Amino acid sequence: MTSVVIIGTGNVARHIFDVFHARDQIDVIQVAGRNKRALSYFKERANISEDLENLQAADIYMLAVTDEAIGSVGEQMSNHRSLFVHTSGSTPIDILPNHGRRGVFYPLQTFSREMKVNFRTVPICIEAESEKDYKILEGMASEIDSPYYRVNSEQRLHLHTAAVFVNNFTNHLYHVGYTLCENQGISKEILNPLIAETVHKLEYMTPLEAQTGPARRGDLTTIGKQINIIDQPLYKDIYDSISKSIQATYAEKL
Amino acid sequence: MTSVVIIGTGNVARHIFDVFHARDQIDVIQVAGRNKRALSYFKERANISEDLENLQAADIYMLAVTDEAIGSVGEQMSNHRSLFVHTSGSTPIDILPNHGRRGVFYPLQTFSREMKVNFRTVPICIEAESEKDYKILEGMASEIDSPYYRVNSEQRLHLHTAAVFVNNFTNHLYHVGYTLCENQGISKEILNPLIAETVHKLEYMTPLEAQTGPARRGDLTTIGKQINIIDQPLYKDIYDSISKSIQATYAEKL
Repeated sequence: MTSVVIIGTGNVARHIFDVFHARDQIDVIQVAGRNKRALSYFKERANISEDLENLQAADIYMLAVTDEAIGSVGEQMSNHRSLFVHTSGSTPIDILPNHGRRGVFYPLQTFSREMKVNFRTVPICIEAESEKDYKILEGMASEIDSPYYRVNSEQRLHLHTAAVFVNNFTNHLYHVGYTLCENQGISKEILNPLIAETVHKLEYMTPLEAQTGPARRGDLTTIGKQINIIDQPLYKDIYDSISKSIQATYAEKL
Repeated sequence: MTSVVIIGTGNVARHIFDVFHARDQIDVIQVAGRNKRALSYFKERANISEDLENLQAADIYMLAVTDEAIGSVGEQMSNHRSLFVHTSGSTPIDILPNHGRRGVFYPLQTFSREMKVNFRTVPICIEAESEKDYKILEGMASEIDSPYYRVNSEQRLHLHTAAVFVNNFTNHLYHVGYTLCENQGISKEILNPLIAETVHKLEYMTPLEAQTGPARRGDLTTIGKQINIIDQPLYKDIYDSISKSIQATYAEKL
Protein backbone atom coordinates (compact mmCIF):
# COMPACT_ATOMS: atom_id res chain seq x y z
CA MET A 1 0.00 0.00 0.00
CA THR A 2 1.39 3.37 -1.06
CA SER A 3 0.24 6.44 0.85
CA VAL A 4 -0.17 9.62 -1.14
CA VAL A 5 -0.80 13.27 -0.36
CA ILE A 6 -2.04 15.24 -3.35
CA ILE A 7 -1.29 18.95 -3.46
CA GLY A 8 -3.56 20.84 -5.83
CA THR A 9 -7.29 20.91 -6.53
CA GLY A 10 -7.56 21.44 -10.30
CA ASN A 11 -8.63 19.05 -13.07
CA VAL A 12 -5.53 16.86 -12.94
CA ALA A 13 -5.69 16.62 -9.14
CA ARG A 14 -9.37 15.62 -9.27
CA HIS A 15 -8.97 12.97 -11.95
CA ILE A 16 -5.87 11.48 -10.30
CA PHE A 17 -7.58 11.52 -6.92
CA ASP A 18 -10.64 9.75 -8.32
CA VAL A 19 -8.69 6.95 -9.94
CA PHE A 20 -6.28 6.49 -7.02
CA HIS A 21 -9.13 6.49 -4.52
CA ALA A 22 -10.82 3.66 -6.38
CA ARG A 23 -7.81 1.33 -6.05
CA ASP A 24 -6.81 -0.90 -3.16
CA GLN A 25 -3.07 -0.44 -3.32
CA ILE A 26 -3.06 3.36 -3.26
CA ASP A 27 -4.25 5.31 -0.24
CA VAL A 28 -4.77 9.02 -0.79
CA ILE A 29 -4.68 10.18 2.79
CA GLN A 30 -4.87 13.91 2.25
CA VAL A 31 -5.48 16.61 -0.35
CA ALA A 32 -4.03 20.08 0.20
CA GLY A 33 -4.67 23.35 -1.59
CA ARG A 34 -5.35 27.00 -0.97
CA ASN A 35 -8.74 27.02 -2.68
CA LYS A 36 -11.17 26.10 0.10
CA ARG A 37 -14.12 25.69 -2.24
CA ALA A 38 -12.20 23.39 -4.60
CA LEU A 39 -11.01 21.37 -1.60
CA SER A 40 -14.57 20.49 -0.68
CA TYR A 41 -14.69 18.11 -3.68
CA PHE A 42 -12.37 15.76 -1.77
CA LYS A 43 -13.58 16.12 1.80
CA GLU A 44 -15.79 13.04 1.99
CA ARG A 45 -13.01 10.77 0.82
CA ALA A 46 -9.80 12.20 2.31
CA ASN A 47 -8.49 14.57 4.89
CA ILE A 48 -8.22 18.06 3.44
CA SER A 49 -5.82 20.85 4.38
CA GLU A 50 -5.36 24.48 3.39
CA ASP A 51 -1.99 24.55 5.06
CA LEU A 52 1.00 23.16 3.19
CA GLU A 53 3.25 23.19 6.18
CA ASN A 54 1.48 20.66 8.36
CA LEU A 55 0.83 17.83 5.98
CA GLN A 56 0.52 14.22 7.00
CA ALA A 57 3.45 11.88 6.50
CA ALA A 58 3.16 9.97 3.21
CA ASP A 59 5.22 7.87 0.83
CA ILE A 60 4.53 10.24 -2.02
CA TYR A 61 3.69 13.93 -2.25
CA MET A 62 2.11 14.49 -5.62
CA LEU A 63 2.17 18.15 -6.75
CA ALA A 64 -0.65 18.58 -9.26
CA VAL A 65 -0.38 22.37 -9.26
CA THR A 66 0.33 24.88 -12.04
CA ASP A 67 3.80 24.69 -13.59
CA GLU A 68 4.86 27.99 -12.03
CA ALA A 69 3.80 26.90 -8.54
CA ILE A 70 5.69 23.57 -8.44
CA GLY A 71 8.98 25.04 -7.22
CA SER A 72 7.58 27.29 -4.51
CA VAL A 73 5.07 24.74 -3.25
CA GLY A 74 7.89 22.20 -3.01
CA GLU A 75 9.99 24.65 -1.02
CA GLN A 76 7.21 25.15 1.51
CA MET A 77 7.28 21.43 2.23
CA SER A 78 10.93 21.32 3.23
CA ASN A 79 10.15 19.52 6.48
CA HIS A 80 9.19 16.44 4.47
CA ARG A 81 11.48 13.94 2.81
CA SER A 82 9.77 11.10 0.91
CA LEU A 83 9.21 11.12 -2.86
CA PHE A 84 8.06 14.39 -4.42
CA VAL A 85 6.41 14.02 -7.78
CA HIS A 86 5.00 16.57 -10.19
CA THR A 87 2.51 15.96 -13.02
CA SER A 88 3.63 18.55 -15.56
CA GLY A 89 4.61 18.00 -19.19
CA SER A 90 6.85 20.96 -19.87
CA THR A 91 8.59 21.20 -16.48
CA PRO A 92 11.87 19.41 -15.75
CA ILE A 93 12.25 17.08 -12.79
CA ASP A 94 14.80 19.36 -11.11
CA ILE A 95 12.25 22.11 -10.53
CA LEU A 96 11.34 20.02 -7.49
CA PRO A 97 13.26 20.91 -4.32
CA ASN A 98 16.08 18.54 -3.52
CA HIS A 99 15.20 18.05 0.13
CA GLY A 100 13.35 14.90 -0.96
CA ARG A 101 13.64 12.29 -3.68
CA ARG A 102 12.22 13.48 -7.01
CA GLY A 103 10.04 12.06 -9.73
CA VAL A 104 7.48 12.88 -12.43
CA PHE A 105 4.13 11.23 -13.09
CA TYR A 106 2.79 12.97 -16.20
CA PRO A 107 -0.54 11.76 -17.59
CA LEU A 108 -0.60 12.46 -21.33
CA GLN A 109 -4.26 13.30 -21.75
CA THR A 110 -6.62 16.25 -21.92
CA PHE A 111 -8.66 16.63 -18.77
CA SER A 112 -11.91 18.52 -18.55
CA ARG A 113 -13.78 18.89 -15.32
CA GLU A 114 -16.96 17.44 -16.81
CA MET A 115 -15.58 14.40 -18.63
CA LYS A 116 -14.86 11.15 -16.86
CA VAL A 117 -11.40 9.82 -17.73
CA ASN A 118 -10.66 6.19 -18.47
CA PHE A 119 -7.10 5.78 -17.23
CA ARG A 120 -6.67 2.59 -19.26
CA THR A 121 -6.18 4.95 -22.20
CA VAL A 122 -4.00 7.51 -20.43
CA PRO A 123 -0.29 6.96 -21.05
CA ILE A 124 1.69 7.85 -17.92
CA CYS A 125 5.14 9.31 -18.55
CA ILE A 126 7.40 8.42 -15.65
CA GLU A 127 10.73 9.85 -14.59
CA ALA A 128 12.65 9.30 -11.38
CA GLU A 129 16.18 9.88 -10.09
CA SER A 130 16.60 6.32 -8.89
CA GLU A 131 15.51 2.98 -10.25
CA LYS A 132 13.80 2.23 -6.95
CA ASP A 133 11.60 5.32 -7.22
CA TYR A 134 10.95 4.59 -10.89
CA LYS A 135 9.60 1.19 -9.85
CA ILE A 136 7.32 2.78 -7.25
CA LEU A 137 5.79 5.10 -9.88
CA GLU A 138 5.58 2.29 -12.41
CA GLY A 139 3.67 0.29 -9.80
CA MET A 140 1.18 3.13 -9.37
CA ALA A 141 0.63 3.46 -13.13
CA SER A 142 0.16 -0.27 -13.28
CA GLU A 143 -2.30 -0.23 -10.36
CA ILE A 144 -4.55 2.19 -12.28
CA ASP A 145 -4.18 0.07 -15.47
CA SER A 146 -2.51 2.85 -17.43
CA PRO A 147 0.12 2.17 -20.07
CA TYR A 148 3.37 3.77 -18.94
CA TYR A 149 6.55 5.00 -20.57
CA ARG A 150 9.97 5.99 -19.29
CA VAL A 151 10.40 9.58 -20.44
CA ASN A 152 13.14 11.96 -19.31
CA SER A 153 12.68 15.72 -18.84
CA GLU A 154 13.93 16.69 -22.29
CA GLN A 155 11.82 14.05 -24.02
CA ARG A 156 8.81 15.10 -21.96
CA LEU A 157 9.04 18.70 -23.13
CA HIS A 158 9.07 17.50 -26.75
CA LEU A 159 6.24 15.11 -26.02
CA HIS A 160 4.14 17.83 -24.42
CA THR A 161 4.81 19.99 -27.49
CA ALA A 162 3.67 17.13 -29.72
CA ALA A 163 0.55 16.83 -27.55
CA VAL A 164 -0.15 20.53 -28.03
CA PHE A 165 -0.07 19.98 -31.81
CA VAL A 166 -2.32 16.92 -31.90
CA ASN A 167 -4.74 17.99 -29.18
CA ASN A 168 -4.86 21.74 -28.45
CA PHE A 169 -4.14 22.78 -32.03
CA THR A 170 -6.41 20.27 -33.78
CA ASN A 171 -9.18 21.25 -31.36
CA HIS A 172 -8.74 24.88 -32.40
CA LEU A 173 -8.89 23.84 -36.07
CA TYR A 174 -12.24 22.18 -35.31
CA HIS A 175 -13.36 25.50 -33.88
CA VAL A 176 -12.19 27.31 -37.03
CA GLY A 177 -13.92 24.79 -39.32
CA TYR A 178 -17.17 25.00 -37.37
CA THR A 179 -17.01 28.78 -37.41
CA LEU A 180 -16.54 28.89 -41.20
CA CYS A 181 -19.61 26.67 -41.62
CA GLU A 182 -21.79 28.58 -39.20
CA ASN A 183 -20.87 31.89 -40.82
CA GLN A 184 -22.37 30.47 -44.02
CA GLY A 185 -25.49 29.12 -42.37
CA ILE A 186 -24.32 25.52 -42.76
CA SER A 187 -24.81 23.10 -39.87
CA LYS A 188 -21.42 22.41 -38.30
CA GLU A 189 -22.30 18.72 -37.90
CA ILE A 190 -21.68 18.32 -41.63
CA LEU A 191 -17.95 18.24 -40.76
CA ASN A 192 -18.14 15.46 -38.18
CA PRO A 193 -17.84 12.45 -40.52
CA LEU A 194 -14.75 14.02 -42.07
CA ILE A 195 -13.23 14.65 -38.64
CA ALA A 196 -13.91 11.04 -37.65
CA GLU A 197 -12.46 9.66 -40.89
CA THR A 198 -9.28 11.72 -40.51
CA VAL A 199 -8.58 9.96 -37.22
CA HIS A 200 -9.82 6.58 -38.42
CA LYS A 201 -7.26 6.60 -41.24
CA LEU A 202 -4.43 6.61 -38.70
CA GLU A 203 -5.23 2.95 -38.04
CA TYR A 204 -4.35 2.06 -41.62
CA MET A 205 -1.70 4.50 -42.77
CA THR A 206 0.65 7.17 -41.49
CA PRO A 207 -0.49 10.80 -41.67
CA LEU A 208 2.35 11.29 -44.16
CA GLU A 209 0.63 8.80 -46.48
CA ALA A 210 -2.90 9.94 -45.64
CA GLN A 211 -2.35 13.58 -46.54
CA THR A 212 -4.71 14.90 -49.23
CA GLY A 213 -5.92 18.36 -50.22
CA PRO A 214 -4.82 21.42 -52.19
CA ALA A 215 -1.50 21.95 -50.38
CA ARG A 216 -0.51 18.31 -50.87
CA ARG A 217 -1.28 18.60 -54.59
CA GLY A 218 0.44 21.99 -54.84
CA ASP A 219 -2.89 23.33 -56.13
CA LEU A 220 -2.17 27.05 -55.82
CA THR A 221 -5.44 28.06 -57.48
CA THR A 222 -7.53 26.45 -54.75
CA ILE A 223 -5.17 27.67 -52.01
CA GLY A 224 -5.55 31.20 -53.37
CA LYS A 225 -9.34 31.01 -53.55
CA GLN A 226 -9.64 29.65 -50.04
CA ILE A 227 -7.25 32.05 -48.37
CA ASN A 228 -9.10 34.91 -50.08
CA ILE A 229 -12.49 34.08 -48.64
CA ILE A 230 -11.26 33.73 -45.05
CA ASP A 231 -12.25 36.94 -43.26
CA GLN A 232 -10.34 36.44 -40.04
CA PRO A 233 -6.64 37.46 -40.42
CA LEU A 234 -5.54 35.00 -37.72
CA TYR A 235 -7.27 32.14 -39.57
CA LYS A 236 -5.57 33.26 -42.79
CA ASP A 237 -2.21 33.02 -40.99
CA ILE A 238 -3.01 29.49 -39.85
CA TYR A 239 -4.06 28.52 -43.37
CA ASP A 240 -0.87 29.97 -44.76
CA SER A 241 1.54 28.42 -42.24
CA ILE A 242 0.13 24.90 -42.44
CA SER A 243 -0.21 24.98 -46.22
CA LYS A 244 3.43 26.01 -46.55
CA SER A 245 4.53 23.23 -44.23
CA ILE A 246 2.51 20.63 -46.17
CA GLN A 247 3.89 21.90 -49.49
CA ALA A 248 7.46 21.72 -48.13
CA THR A 249 6.88 18.22 -46.75
CA TYR A 250 5.88 16.85 -50.14
CA ALA A 251 8.30 18.97 -52.17
CA GLU A 252 11.06 17.18 -50.25
CA LYS A 253 9.55 13.83 -51.19
CA LEU A 254 9.64 14.44 -54.96
CA MET B 1 -33.38 4.22 -63.21
CA THR B 2 -30.86 7.02 -63.78
CA SER B 3 -28.12 6.44 -66.36
CA VAL B 4 -24.75 7.96 -65.61
CA VAL B 5 -21.50 8.43 -67.49
CA ILE B 6 -18.57 9.18 -65.21
CA ILE B 7 -15.70 11.19 -66.64
CA GLY B 8 -12.49 10.78 -64.64
CA THR B 9 -10.58 7.86 -63.19
CA GLY B 10 -9.14 9.20 -59.92
CA ASN B 11 -10.07 8.42 -56.32
CA VAL B 12 -13.39 10.26 -56.34
CA ALA B 13 -14.41 8.64 -59.66
CA ARG B 14 -13.56 5.18 -58.30
CA HIS B 15 -15.41 5.54 -55.02
CA ILE B 16 -18.49 7.08 -56.68
CA PHE B 17 -18.44 4.39 -59.35
CA ASP B 18 -18.24 1.63 -56.74
CA VAL B 19 -21.17 2.91 -54.72
CA PHE B 20 -23.34 3.73 -57.74
CA HIS B 21 -22.60 0.37 -59.36
CA ALA B 22 -23.84 -1.43 -56.25
CA ARG B 23 -27.29 0.22 -56.39
CA ASP B 24 -30.32 -0.78 -58.44
CA GLN B 25 -31.61 2.65 -59.34
CA ILE B 26 -28.34 4.01 -60.75
CA ASP B 27 -26.81 2.58 -63.91
CA VAL B 28 -23.26 3.67 -64.62
CA ILE B 29 -23.11 2.82 -68.31
CA GLN B 30 -19.70 4.22 -69.14
CA VAL B 31 -16.51 5.61 -67.61
CA ALA B 32 -14.31 7.90 -69.70
CA GLY B 33 -10.81 9.18 -69.15
CA ARG B 34 -7.48 9.66 -70.86
CA ASN B 35 -5.54 7.39 -68.53
CA LYS B 36 -5.86 3.96 -70.13
CA ARG B 37 -4.32 2.14 -67.20
CA ALA B 38 -6.64 3.84 -64.68
CA LEU B 39 -9.63 3.02 -66.92
CA SER B 40 -8.97 -0.70 -66.60
CA TYR B 41 -10.27 -0.54 -63.01
CA PHE B 42 -13.78 -0.10 -64.42
CA LYS B 43 -13.75 -2.31 -67.51
CA GLU B 44 -15.41 -5.41 -66.03
CA ARG B 45 -18.37 -3.40 -64.81
CA ALA B 46 -18.95 -0.66 -67.42
CA ASN B 47 -18.08 0.37 -70.91
CA ILE B 48 -14.86 2.40 -70.93
CA SER B 49 -13.77 5.11 -73.34
CA GLU B 50 -10.64 7.16 -73.88
CA ASP B 51 -12.49 9.46 -76.21
CA LEU B 52 -14.62 12.24 -74.70
CA GLU B 53 -16.33 13.10 -77.94
CA ASN B 54 -18.18 9.86 -78.57
CA LEU B 55 -19.76 9.14 -75.25
CA GLN B 56 -22.97 7.21 -74.78
CA ALA B 57 -26.21 9.07 -74.18
CA ALA B 58 -26.96 9.35 -70.46
CA ASP B 59 -29.18 11.23 -68.00
CA ILE B 60 -26.17 12.53 -66.13
CA TYR B 61 -22.55 13.21 -67.06
CA MET B 62 -20.57 13.31 -63.87
CA LEU B 63 -17.22 15.07 -64.18
CA ALA B 64 -14.98 13.72 -61.42
CA VAL B 65 -11.85 15.31 -62.85
CA THR B 66 -9.37 17.84 -61.44
CA ASP B 67 -10.76 21.31 -60.77
CA GLU B 68 -8.75 22.83 -63.62
CA ALA B 69 -10.01 20.27 -66.14
CA ILE B 70 -13.77 20.66 -65.45
CA GLY B 71 -14.28 23.57 -67.85
CA SER B 72 -12.31 22.18 -70.79
CA VAL B 73 -13.66 18.65 -70.40
CA GLY B 74 -17.18 20.07 -70.36
CA GLU B 75 -16.47 22.03 -73.56
CA GLN B 76 -15.37 18.88 -75.34
CA MET B 77 -18.77 17.36 -74.68
CA SER B 78 -20.74 20.08 -76.41
CA ASN B 79 -22.68 17.57 -78.49
CA HIS B 80 -24.42 16.39 -75.33
CA ARG B 81 -27.24 18.07 -73.47
CA SER B 82 -28.47 16.28 -70.31
CA LEU B 83 -27.37 17.16 -66.80
CA PHE B 84 -23.66 17.93 -66.30
CA VAL B 85 -22.46 17.61 -62.74
CA HIS B 86 -19.06 18.19 -61.16
CA THR B 87 -17.81 16.87 -57.82
CA SER B 88 -15.53 19.69 -56.72
CA GLY B 89 -15.62 21.65 -53.48
CA SER B 90 -13.95 24.89 -54.45
CA THR B 91 -15.29 25.24 -58.00
CA PRO B 92 -18.51 27.16 -58.78
CA ILE B 93 -21.35 25.55 -60.69
CA ASP B 94 -20.93 27.94 -63.62
CA ILE B 95 -17.53 26.55 -64.55
CA LEU B 96 -19.60 23.89 -66.32
CA PRO B 97 -20.43 24.70 -69.96
CA ASN B 98 -23.95 25.98 -70.49
CA HIS B 99 -24.80 23.70 -73.39
CA GLY B 100 -26.42 21.37 -70.85
CA ARG B 101 -28.17 21.69 -67.50
CA ARG B 102 -25.76 22.11 -64.61
CA GLY B 103 -25.35 20.73 -61.12
CA VAL B 104 -22.87 19.83 -58.38
CA PHE B 105 -22.62 16.59 -56.40
CA TYR B 106 -19.80 17.20 -53.93
CA PRO B 107 -19.01 14.41 -51.46
CA LEU B 108 -17.53 15.99 -48.32
CA GLN B 109 -15.06 13.28 -47.40
CA THR B 110 -11.40 12.38 -47.76
CA PHE B 111 -10.87 9.59 -50.29
CA SER B 112 -7.79 7.42 -50.41
CA ARG B 113 -7.36 4.77 -53.03
CA GLU B 114 -6.82 2.05 -50.44
CA MET B 115 -9.65 2.81 -48.00
CA LYS B 116 -13.18 1.62 -48.58
CA VAL B 117 -15.70 4.43 -48.09
CA ASN B 118 -19.01 4.04 -46.30
CA PHE B 119 -21.26 6.51 -48.09
CA ARG B 120 -23.74 6.46 -45.20
CA THR B 121 -21.26 8.79 -43.51
CA VAL B 122 -20.45 10.95 -46.55
CA PRO B 123 -22.48 14.18 -46.65
CA ILE B 124 -23.32 15.05 -50.26
CA CYS B 125 -23.50 18.77 -51.01
CA ILE B 126 -25.96 19.34 -53.84
CA GLU B 127 -26.47 22.32 -56.09
CA ALA B 128 -28.54 22.60 -59.26
CA GLU B 129 -29.94 25.37 -61.43
CA SER B 130 -33.47 24.01 -61.33
CA GLU B 131 -35.55 22.38 -58.63
CA LYS B 132 -36.16 19.42 -60.94
CA ASP B 133 -32.43 18.74 -61.29
CA TYR B 134 -31.93 19.26 -57.57
CA LYS B 135 -34.49 16.51 -56.97
CA ILE B 136 -32.66 14.15 -59.36
CA LEU B 137 -29.39 14.65 -57.49
CA GLU B 138 -31.14 14.38 -54.14
CA GLY B 139 -32.56 11.07 -55.34
CA MET B 140 -29.08 9.79 -56.15
CA ALA B 141 -27.71 10.81 -52.75
CA SER B 142 -30.68 9.12 -51.16
CA GLU B 143 -30.16 5.96 -53.24
CA ILE B 144 -26.62 5.58 -51.85
CA ASP B 145 -27.88 6.31 -48.30
CA SER B 146 -25.82 9.46 -47.91
CA PRO B 147 -27.00 12.44 -45.89
CA TYR B 148 -27.36 15.41 -48.25
CA TYR B 149 -27.38 19.17 -47.96
CA ARG B 150 -28.37 22.00 -50.27
CA VAL B 151 -25.22 24.07 -50.63
CA ASN B 152 -24.67 26.86 -53.16
CA SER B 153 -21.33 27.65 -54.84
CA GLU B 154 -20.28 30.33 -52.38
CA GLN B 155 -21.19 28.20 -49.36
CA ARG B 156 -19.41 25.23 -50.90
CA LEU B 157 -16.14 27.15 -51.19
CA HIS B 158 -16.35 28.07 -47.51
CA LEU B 159 -17.29 24.51 -46.64
CA HIS B 160 -14.35 23.09 -48.57
CA THR B 161 -12.11 25.56 -46.75
CA ALA B 162 -13.55 24.36 -43.43
CA ALA B 163 -12.87 20.79 -44.55
CA VAL B 164 -9.26 21.68 -45.30
CA PHE B 165 -8.90 22.93 -41.71
CA VAL B 166 -10.48 19.93 -39.99
CA ASN B 167 -9.09 17.23 -42.28
CA ASN B 168 -5.98 18.23 -44.28
CA PHE B 169 -4.60 20.50 -41.60
CA THR B 170 -5.32 18.29 -38.59
CA ASN B 171 -3.77 15.38 -40.49
CA HIS B 172 -0.62 17.43 -40.96
CA LEU B 173 -0.60 18.27 -37.25
CA TYR B 174 -0.67 14.53 -36.54
CA HIS B 175 2.36 14.22 -38.79
CA VAL B 176 4.11 17.02 -36.88
CA GLY B 177 3.25 15.46 -33.51
CA TYR B 178 4.46 12.03 -34.58
CA THR B 179 7.67 13.54 -35.96
CA LEU B 180 8.41 15.36 -32.69
CA CYS B 181 8.00 12.07 -30.80
CA GLU B 182 10.07 10.00 -33.17
CA ASN B 183 12.89 12.56 -33.15
CA GLN B 184 13.09 11.92 -29.39
CA GLY B 185 12.95 8.14 -29.68
CA ILE B 186 9.42 8.01 -28.27
CA SER B 187 6.90 5.68 -29.90
CA LYS B 188 4.38 7.79 -31.83
CA GLU B 189 1.53 5.56 -30.65
CA ILE B 190 1.77 7.30 -27.27
CA LEU B 191 -0.21 10.18 -28.86
CA ASN B 192 -3.11 8.09 -30.15
CA PRO B 193 -5.29 8.10 -27.01
CA LEU B 194 -4.99 11.89 -26.89
CA ILE B 195 -5.93 12.19 -30.58
CA ALA B 196 -8.95 9.96 -30.00
CA GLU B 197 -10.05 11.87 -26.89
CA THR B 198 -9.82 15.22 -28.73
CA VAL B 199 -12.41 13.99 -31.22
CA HIS B 200 -14.48 12.16 -28.61
CA LYS B 201 -14.97 15.39 -26.67
CA LEU B 202 -16.84 16.90 -29.62
CA GLU B 203 -19.78 14.67 -28.70
CA TYR B 204 -20.11 16.41 -25.35
CA MET B 205 -18.96 19.98 -25.81
CA THR B 206 -18.03 22.50 -28.49
CA PRO B 207 -14.34 22.88 -29.39
CA LEU B 208 -14.63 26.39 -27.97
CA GLU B 209 -15.48 24.87 -24.58
CA ALA B 210 -13.08 21.93 -24.92
CA GLN B 211 -9.98 24.03 -25.56
CA THR B 212 -7.16 23.45 -23.08
CA GLY B 213 -3.39 24.00 -23.17
CA PRO B 214 -0.82 26.75 -22.74
CA ALA B 215 -2.29 29.14 -25.35
CA ARG B 216 -5.76 28.87 -23.81
CA ARG B 217 -4.29 29.65 -20.38
CA GLY B 218 -2.10 32.43 -21.78
CA ASP B 219 0.87 30.53 -20.33
CA LEU B 220 3.68 32.38 -22.11
CA THR B 221 6.39 30.52 -20.23
CA THR B 222 5.34 27.15 -21.64
CA ILE B 223 4.68 28.62 -25.09
CA GLY B 224 8.21 30.07 -25.08
CA LYS B 225 9.81 26.79 -23.96
CA GLN B 226 7.98 24.77 -26.57
CA ILE B 227 8.57 27.08 -29.50
CA ASN B 228 12.26 27.14 -28.58
CA ILE B 229 12.75 23.40 -28.80
CA ILE B 230 11.07 23.02 -32.20
CA ASP B 231 13.87 22.67 -34.75
CA GLN B 232 11.80 22.97 -37.92
CA PRO B 233 11.11 26.65 -38.78
CA LEU B 234 7.84 25.73 -40.58
CA TYR B 235 6.62 23.90 -37.49
CA LYS B 236 7.55 26.94 -35.36
CA ASP B 237 5.39 29.08 -37.68
CA ILE B 238 2.45 26.71 -37.25
CA TYR B 239 2.91 26.74 -33.47
CA ASP B 240 3.03 30.51 -33.49
CA SER B 241 0.02 31.13 -35.75
CA ILE B 242 -2.32 28.71 -33.97
CA SER B 243 -1.22 29.83 -30.49
CA LYS B 244 -1.92 33.44 -31.42
CA SER B 245 -5.35 32.55 -32.75
CA ILE B 246 -6.21 30.59 -29.59
CA GLN B 247 -4.99 33.45 -27.37
CA ALA B 248 -7.07 35.96 -29.36
CA THR B 249 -10.14 33.71 -29.20
CA TYR B 250 -10.09 33.59 -25.42
CA ALA B 251 -8.91 37.16 -24.91
CA GLU B 252 -12.15 38.21 -26.65
CA LYS B 253 -14.13 36.04 -24.24
CA LEU B 254 -12.81 37.73 -21.12
